[in-house]
Amino acid sequence: MNIIEIIEKKKNRQALNEAEIAFFIDGICTGSIADYQASALLMAICLNGMNDTETALLTDKMAHSGDTLDLSALFPTADKHSTGGVGDKTSLIVAPIAAACGVNIAKMSGRGLGHTGGTIDKLESIPGFQTTVSESAFFEQVKSIGIAIVAQSKNLVPADKILYALRDVTATVNSIPLIASSIMSKKLAAGADVIELDVKVGSGAFMKTAKEAQALAEAMVNIGKQNGRKTAALITDMDEPLGTHIGNSLEIKEVIATLNGGGAHDLRTLCLHLAANMISLAKNMEKEAALRLAEEALQSGKALEKLKQMVAAQGGDVCYIENPALFERAAFTQPVTAQESGYLQKVDAQCIGETAALLGAGRQKKEDSIDFAAGIILEKKCGDYVAAGDTIAALYTNQKESLAAAAARFQEALTIGNTPPQKLPLIQGEVL
Amino acid sequence: MNIIEIIEKKKNRQALNEAEIAFFIDGICTGSIADYQASALLMAICLNGMNDTETALLTDKMAHSGDTLDLSALFPTADKHSTGGVGDKTSLIVAPIAAACGVNIAKMSGRGLGHTGGTIDKLESIPGFQTTVSESAFFEQVKSIGIAIVAQSKNLVPADKILYALRDVTATVNSIPLIASSIMSKKLAAGADVIELDVKVGSGAFMKTAKEAQALAEAMVNIGKQNGRKTAALITDMDEPLGTHIGNSLEIKEVIATLNGGGAHDLRTLCLHLAANMISLAKNMEKEAALRLAEEALQSGKALEKLKQMVAAQGGDVCYIENPALFERAAFTQPVTAQESGYLQKVDAQCIGETAALLGAGRQKKEDSIDFAAGIILEKKCGDYVAAGDTIAALYTNQKESLAAAAARFQEALTIGNTPPQKLPLIQGEVL
Repeated sequence: MNIIEIIEKKKNRQALNEAEIAFFIDGICTGSIADYQASALLMAICLNGMNDTETALLTDKMAHSGDTLDLSALFPTADKHSTGGVGDKTSLIVAPIAAACGVNIAKMSGRGLGHTGGTIDKLESIPGFQTTVSESAFFEQVKSIGIAIVAQSKNLVPADKILYALRDVTATVNSIPLIASSIMSKKLAAGADVIELDVKVGSGAFMKTAKEAQALAEAMVNIGKQNGRKTAALITDMDEPLGTHIGNSLEIKEVIATLNGGGAHDLRTLCLHLAANMISLAKNMEKEAALRLAEEALQSGKALEKLKQMVAAQGGDVCYIENPALFERAAFTQPVTAQESGYLQKVDAQCIGETAALLGAGRQKKEDSIDFAAGIILEKKCGDYVAAGDTIAALYTNQKESLAAAAARFQEALTIGNTPPQKLPLIQGEVL
Repeated sequence: MNIIEIIEKKKNRQALNEAEIAFFIDGICTGSIADYQASALLMAICLNGMNDTETALLTDKMAHSGDTLDLSALFPTADKHSTGGVGDKTSLIVAPIAAACGVNIAKMSGRGLGHTGGTIDKLESIPGFQTTVSESAFFEQVKSIGIAIVAQSKNLVPADKILYALRDVTATVNSIPLIASSIMSKKLAAGADVIELDVKVGSGAFMKTAKEAQALAEAMVNIGKQNGRKTAALITDMDEPLGTHIGNSLEIKEVIATLNGGGAHDLRTLCLHLAANMISLAKNMEKEAALRLAEEALQSGKALEKLKQMVAAQGGDVCYIENPALFERAAFTQPVTAQESGYLQKVDAQCIGETAALLGAGRQKKEDSIDFAAGIILEKKCGDYVAAGDTIAALYTNQKESLAAAAARFQEALTIGNTPPQKLPLIQGEVL
């Protein structure tokens, strides 16, 4: 077998078999296949695609390119993944709900590159919270309280790191089989029995159209199923930010508000559906019954209790969960007001994300530090009526000089008109 | 401008502009574009193609990536190129004919990798013949006698060397714009005003189908014209070997026989048409008149005289041209005989080429040495009737141990049947 024949085959639109896919993944990890050969194959995959079987095999070989977690001792376990959006703090609400309903969450998360931090960054905005935990302590914690969210410690899916670095510089990012295998290889390696996916679609999402989002959701669900995991996906709106808070500690505040029975309606609804899917799959229950369980966990305070248990187990100061006003506020704040009267027809998620980045809420490079207190609180959402001069949002930052540019960028996100907008539903589809 | 955007553009089937193509060629030569980025773009070009303008621009930028020859002082000049086949010694007949008709031939040729040597290897089988000549001596020789064929000395088209090495290991060889630009960039850099192309089609050729050959011929003629050169192409048969002699000094013998008015009919016919095209383009003559000039140069012995002048000017022993029996014969020879009676329906060029390689006539790697005397003389051609036991060919080699395998390989080239074959015409098409 040689890589030139494998590239040739894909160039000629033929399907690769298991041995060929294994040869490729093994070769990029050992270095026996050169970068320039890998990138030629990646471009051929971008342009000629992969069928469901190839994509599932690719993902499996990638998943086994490094360490994998065996969570069988913690059965039933569930994991979730969002393709990413602005104001998306669902993991921190969904995980406690699922744990409160008896589904074990043993989750390894990453730090974020982008407009705001990732789940690990958000958790680290809670004073004292430790995300670096030994494997034995991680397993003990899940056995004891049913939930742990820690930073990735093991050498998970090195093949993905190699491929991703190459795709990034060869214009081969945008390919459903490559995106799906990248995401799902990490979920397979992370070991959970149930994988719930939240595929975002819209201006603030990686997938801009419903068709692309549907294709990605189908590809990922197929990969999970072909590899023996219970997998489902929701396709959900990311034209406007999710919820009202954007930024690391600000999002933790909204998480606590939601677990206290408050929070924005869209965020709450989505979290309940994601949690219900996980519970339904993990416990072989009807979705309706699982949804009632999830609602009960939220309303009774059991989910909030799970969050507190996790924060306590990982060294965080639970006082901050009990009294979110303790979170340090940013030194500078500024309101953004409506420049005219009318309906908010659009609150563009992409623009809002860029505003948050300008305020210091995210990082562009791995080495950058994050301003945990920086971000945005929306007081109005898409569809709301505003009068000229009304406050639409408040900007928070520790870098005073960023406020002017951030306020200007925020204004670009807004479309105000005379009629209420036709909003797409929050949950636009489901793949089971 | 950055290479990722350029790759993305071609991935999305958009045409690249002149600045982008220049950026790419410049970047691969300076090393500012990585191999893995170049190979991703090459694969995108393979799969999404290039239009005529892009291909012409690519070729021009490649041609100017290194030294170029200015032959204007030698006007009118003509060059020819064959896409390669078995028994193809046309350059060594066509060039003297054209020179005898007043068209200057100032030609730089390469050594061959493949079944037999290239033009330079064949010339070097003439004792004393020097292919390494200073640029001033090269120009002086053409001014004086109208013909010189030397080994490439200048740094011509380094971009092609880089791209070709990469294409070879990334399954991106097989692309009309890339093949056409590779060939034509070297022709543009070599400076001749007229470029005559011989695009081979059939079993022994790189292009296996008439459709592919037509597309390549059109692409190359377009490149030449868009870059201000008078360019034409013949599409000619390579299902069976051209002429009767295959191997370096054996082919020189057939060249001499042809210039003496003998030689195989197919070889003679093709050489006259190629020469006529060059003369017609170089001197703005009607093709028919040019053909008569070429025939006259051959019949009168003027073309043979040009070959002798060139051999003498480049230090070769003219006695060998006057008396080809002087060429050293291979130590071992063996006839190949017909195993049954009937018509030779097929004499597969690819198989015959492989037979010649087994006998030692070619090189697989640059460092390999060539056995100048090794090769094959065909006594029968496709369409001839043979009786069982008739000699079809004689094999020549200095490696006795290769004879058995070579004879067996030769037999695989043959198809003998009860009816004469439907042969395709020698000249299958023309692109002007």
